Amino acid sequence: MQVFMIGSGPFDEAYFKQYVEDVMDNKHGEAVYVGIDLGAKRFVEMDETMVFALGDFDSVSETDYQHIVDNANDVIRLNPMKDETDMQAGLNWVIDHYPNAEYHLLGALGGRVDHSLCNLWMIFMPEYQRVLEHIHLIHPKNWVNFLSPGQFQVNKVSEMTYLSFILMTPVQELTLTDVVYPLDRATYRYPMALISNEFLANHTQMSGSFKTGLIAVIQSRD
Amino acid sequence: MQVFMIGSGPFDEAYFKQYVEDVMDNKHGEAVYVGIDLGAKRFVEMDETMVFALGDFDSVSETDYQHIVDNANDVIRLNPMKDETDMQAGLNWVIDHYPNAEYHLLGALGGRVDHSLCNLWMIFMPEYQRVLEHIHLIHPKNWVNFLSPGQFQVNKVSEMTYLSFILMTPVQELTLTDVVYPLDRATYRYPMALISNEFLANHTQMSGSFKTGLIAVIQSRD
Repeated sequence: MQVFMIGSGPFDEAYFKQYVEDVMDNKHGEAVYVGIDLGAKRFVEMDETMVFALGDFDSVSETDYQHIVDNANDVIRLNPMKDETDMQAGLNWVIDHYPNAEYHLLGALGGRVDHSLCNLWMIFMPEYQRVLEHIHLIHPKNWVNFLSPGQFQVNKVSEMTYLSFILMTPVQELTLTDVVYPLDRATYRYPMALISNEFLANHTQMSGSFKTGLIAVIQSRD
Repeated sequence: MQVFMIGSGPFDEAYFKQYVEDVMDNKHGEAVYVGIDLGAKRFVEMDETMVFALGDFDSVSETDYQHIVDNANDVIRLNPMKDETDMQAGLNWVIDHYPNAEYHLLGALGGRVDHSLCNLWMIFMPEYQRVLEHIHLIHPKNWVNFLSPGQFQVNKVSEMTYLSFILMTPVQELTLTDVVYPLDRATYRYPMALISNEFLANHTQMSGSFKTGLIAVIQSRD
């Protein structure tokens, strides 16, 4: 199961459609769409049906809201004053209903820095630890995946140039192989942003491992 | 002493000029300009003299590089392969030369997410702990300040709407007063992004305190 969620952040319709097509060409199973707040309006504009829409819908008109209701199997309208963000509330619903899916979040990066950080900070939340490696934040110039301790592989996204490892906590024994700047069991006593690494020429995969900590991997381009 | 540094990230010349004017209207002492890589070219384009320019200057032409040399009292050209970023190398130079200044960094947020995070991650680096509260990351829609444990005040930036506290580490006993969502000695066992708080109506300052941890304060607008 592939779950594609669109949030309220910067969004590129053509990029989204290409992304969904690429994922579905390579994966098994069904694709479902989830609209978060302004993201739900974006599915309506693309004439796509959502399994679920959630938000306070403060920024859409009553007519738009009716279109969202017509295009979604399920809608939850939240109180604008709440502790968790719409994206988190939506992801909680999605994880409950599709516990073994891949979760692709678009419209979650770019724009307000605090919003982007809030979405990245999901890496710290206890309720997402089990599914951490199945959450992907996708933006035309920035792809983010999360890593828990242990062995990992990263597949190159064809149009991206740089490969950055953002240590979100202290990290023990980080090894990176098949990259331009490899590491062998490096230990960092405080969070470090190891940016602008690259895959080796003609390599489409790299691998690594670490013993403790949490890491966000970002593939990006200028 | 006010040090204005421009980096290679998204940059708005009109916004920069207004920002410098506003800071200098409110502060004592001299203003100096520091250009980091592509940021040095931006000072040349504004016909401003830099005390210092630093970068690998990979992305500027030889002619542009000559103009940078002509417009800067001091220039360091770095090897493109290096461990620290240009912005960090530049900030190190600036802190050595102007140890008691305020450091205003523009062109440090927006664009590549890994670059923005790298600049935010300065909050963790031991060499910046002494000057942490004098570093400001400035972007037309996102202003970031860093807080160390103890009492703090935040002054409202007039055109911004939201006030977010990004807990970069676990935080003990966080108190926030004179805000829409106050807190009284709240403790967080893992980093949390407390976003979309606001100053109280007719208040231009809020205050707070915390006992342990590190916090980035972001004032932003849509």
